[in-house]
Parts: sequence; C-alpha cells; structure tokens
Amino acid sequence: MSTKTTPLNNSQDTPKAIVLLSGGLDSTTTLAIARDDGYDCYVMSFRYGQRNKAELQCAENVAKSLGAKQHTIIDIDLRIFGASALTADIEVPKGRLETEMGGSIPITYVPARNTIFLSYALAWAEVLAADTIFIGANVIDYSGYPDCRPEYISAYQTMANLATQAGVEGKTKLTIHAPLLDKTKAEIIQIGTALGVDYSLTLSCYDPDMDSRACGECDSCVLRKKGFEDAGISDPTRYR
Amino acid sequence: MSTKTTPLNNSQDTPKAIVLLSGGLDSTTTLAIARDDGYDCYVMSFRYGQRNKAELQCAENVAKSLGAKQHTIIDIDLRIFGASALTADIEVPKGRLETEMGGSIPITYVPARNTIFLSYALAWAEVLAADTIFIGANVIDYSGYPDCRPEYISAYQTMANLATQAGVEGKTKLTIHAPLLDKTKAEIIQIGTALGVDYSLTLSCYDPDMDSRACGECDSCVLRKKGFEDAGISDPTRYR
Repeated sequence: MSTKTTPLNNSQDTPKAIVLLSGGLDSTTTLAIARDDGYDCYVMSFRYGQRNKAELQCAENVAKSLGAKQHTIIDIDLRIFGASALTADIEVPKGRLETEMGGSIPITYVPARNTIFLSYALAWAEVLAADTIFIGANVIDYSGYPDCRPEYISAYQTMANLATQAGVEGKTKLTIHAPLLDKTKAEIIQIGTALGVDYSLTLSCYDPDMDSRACGECDSCVLRKKGFEDAGISDPTRYR
Repeated sequence: MSTKTTPLNNSQDTPKAIVLLSGGLDSTTTLAIARDDGYDCYVMSFRYGQRNKAELQCAENVAKSLGAKQHTIIDIDLRIFGASALTADIEVPKGRLETEMGGSIPITYVPARNTIFLSYALAWAEVLAADTIFIGANVIDYSGYPDCRPEYISAYQTMANLATQAGVEGKTKLTIHAPLLDKTKAEIIQIGTALGVDYSLTLSCYDPDMDSRACGECDSCVLRKKGFEDAGISDPTRYR
C-alpha cells in the first residue's frame, strides 16, 4: 500500500505511535493504517468544547474496534477563544456544494486546533518514546483549514524534533505522519474498507442530532456522502 | 534598549501581544519589556498541575502591577504525562552548584511544556489578531531544557505562520519574541529593575513552602540568587 511507513524503532519491542482520533472518517482510517503499518497505537482524543460530543463516543468505539493499546481523552477548553462554529454559538453553514468550499477558510475552523492537539501528542510521544505521530490531515476535500496543509505538517515536524529531550540527545527522530494528506475522500474510504474499517462506527457531521444521526447538509456531510458515491461503496451513515 | 522590537501592526490601534507569564523572574521581566515596547499585553498563565501553585498568585499580582490588558489562566493537566519533578511525585534536586547544571536535561523538565503553552498562545493571538507572542525563554542559565533553545523558538515561529488563517491570507506575520534568550540572569535582573519591575512579587522556586517562601536550594533558586549577586542588586526574595 502506498501509505506504508517503516517503523523507525530498532529495538525488539513493537514500535509505538500516537494516533490523533476524532471519531470521524479520516482519523479512523489513519488509525487503521497505523495498525497495519505494525505500530502499537496509543490513541488520543480531545473533549474541547465541540458541539459534536457524540464524536467522542464514536472515537471510543473506533479505538476499541481497531485494537488501540490505550485511549486517552484530554479535557481542554477551546471555547475561551470563541470564533468557530464548531465551538461557539455560531450557526454551522449547510447546503453548500463541494465546489463552493475551499476558497476561503470557513467559520468551522477552530484557531490553532491541530497545533494544540499535536502538542499534546508530542508530550505523550516523548513520555512513551514513540517515534511517530499519526494525524488524519488531508488537503484534498479539506474544507480550507490552514493547519491541514503539507507545509504546515512538515514545519511542525521540524519544530517537534527541536522541542524534545530525544531531539537534543539524538535518540529518536520523530515523524509526523499524515498518510491521507493527498488522498481524495473516495480513496480514503477505499483504503479503510480494504483494512476492514467499519465506517458505521464513525461520525463526520458538524451538527448531528441527539441520536447521533448526521444532518447530511453541512460541508463535512456533503464531502463524506460524495466520497462513498465516488468510491462506489454503500454509505453506512445514519442520516436523520 | 537592545531588546526593543517594533510593533508590526500598521493600524491606528495599539498593537497587541500575547505574553506567557509563569510568575517567575524571566517571564515577569519579559512582560515589562513587552509593555515598554508599546504593546497592549494579553497575559496567559497555566494551571498545569505544577507543585508550585503559589506562582499563579504571583502571576496575577505581576500582571496587575505591570498593567496587563487581560490575564487568562488556562487549566490543563500535564500530570497525565508524569515524568517530571515539577508535576509528578519525584523529588526536586537541591544543592547543585551552577556549574553542575546544563550538562544533561534535568528531571524538572516537563515534556513539550513550552510547545503546549505556545500553542494556546497562538490560538489566542489568532483570535485577537495579535502580531507577537512574548516568551521568557533563555539559553544562558537555562537548566538544559530543549524547548528554550533559539533554534526551537525559530522553528516554532515558522510553523506558527503556516498554522493560522492570518498566515494563509498573508494578513499578519506572527513573531515569537524571546527577548531574554541570550541574557544572563544578572542582565535580566538589571533590565527588569530599569523598567521598574518589583521582583518581590515574583517566585522562581521549584519547591516553595506553604507560605510561598523559596527553598533557596533548588536549581532555580541557586540561579536566581547568583543573578542578584552578579547584578549587584539586593535580593528581595523571601527565603524560608
């Protein structure tokens, strides 16, 4: 598979990776890839004041189904910064066509979110001596978030290798691995399906109802729906 | 003064800076410099499970005394990562001479701490449209922390400018400014004293007693004491 990485750890132990998991389609597929690459996966999710609290339950179910060694949910409160429809009291845009997305940064963008998430992952990686952090960032169909771009991921890796004890002592070279970076939603779904991912466990919707059913109309739902169509795979998502 | 920066904001408004403040000597001096440079200062401190809880009270007093526009204390729990004498149940080393420090990374190092702190500052900077983040990092007398080195600060700035909306749209170039990077403790004390800092409000000790008095024997106390001696300024620290 083209997304394969070779674990860098030379010891007899199974190498460890930190995997950021939201419970959505991309991060779930990323976890499946990390496991397939031979890593013991230490999975990290965040309760950050998101409207979509159901995604944390999805993350737990996904972590279990994909054999995570440990799943940690970190409590942080990004609502103090306001300014995003995903955390503040701003309406989630609906009914946009795929062609209308990506031009400018949407209101669902959460300031510095991936930077904060990766920083916690970096701390955990240092403590566990993990050599890789997996993140499901993606530039195709990415809704226009600045912290999903390849140049951002690469700059983060450079910084991370200067930030830590291992970096100073030259012990471990840390890789920030974003295996889905250049994949379309359809390709992601095909990769995950080949690895046995059960996408009915995942939730991508920015605004699900009380019963965790997807709205079918926000940017994330539109991209996900089209992904299953393009992949020619039947969509297991529960829509309201 | 050689530590002067020119605010980059071209609007009529007073430019804004985020200032990371622990309540210790270095970060307090950094706040005084930011104010002297003409910034409206938005001060950020962290309740991260540190043993030294008194430093947060010091941070509040310092922020008030140096005219901060706003002071936010963020609750995060770094104890989940264990592995540092500053947060876990490991004894703080005492009685080391200055010449014994700096060779290897000490047990008081908290994994990825500055990276996590800067990431929150980055989120706030983005929301406030602040163009500078001030951090009191220092390589001389720095106790050997990897995330206080100039190459780390520079790599963080590069990453930060790729991480945010402003970076994508080319609106604001963010600077991570560490004005004390190459200063000795004595120079820092001289700069702060010239700017009117009241160091009796600050606390540097890794292990103060219940009455917020410094131990006088941990690495941080040893460096601070010597700084006042070398600066020829009388030390207002309350020792137990």
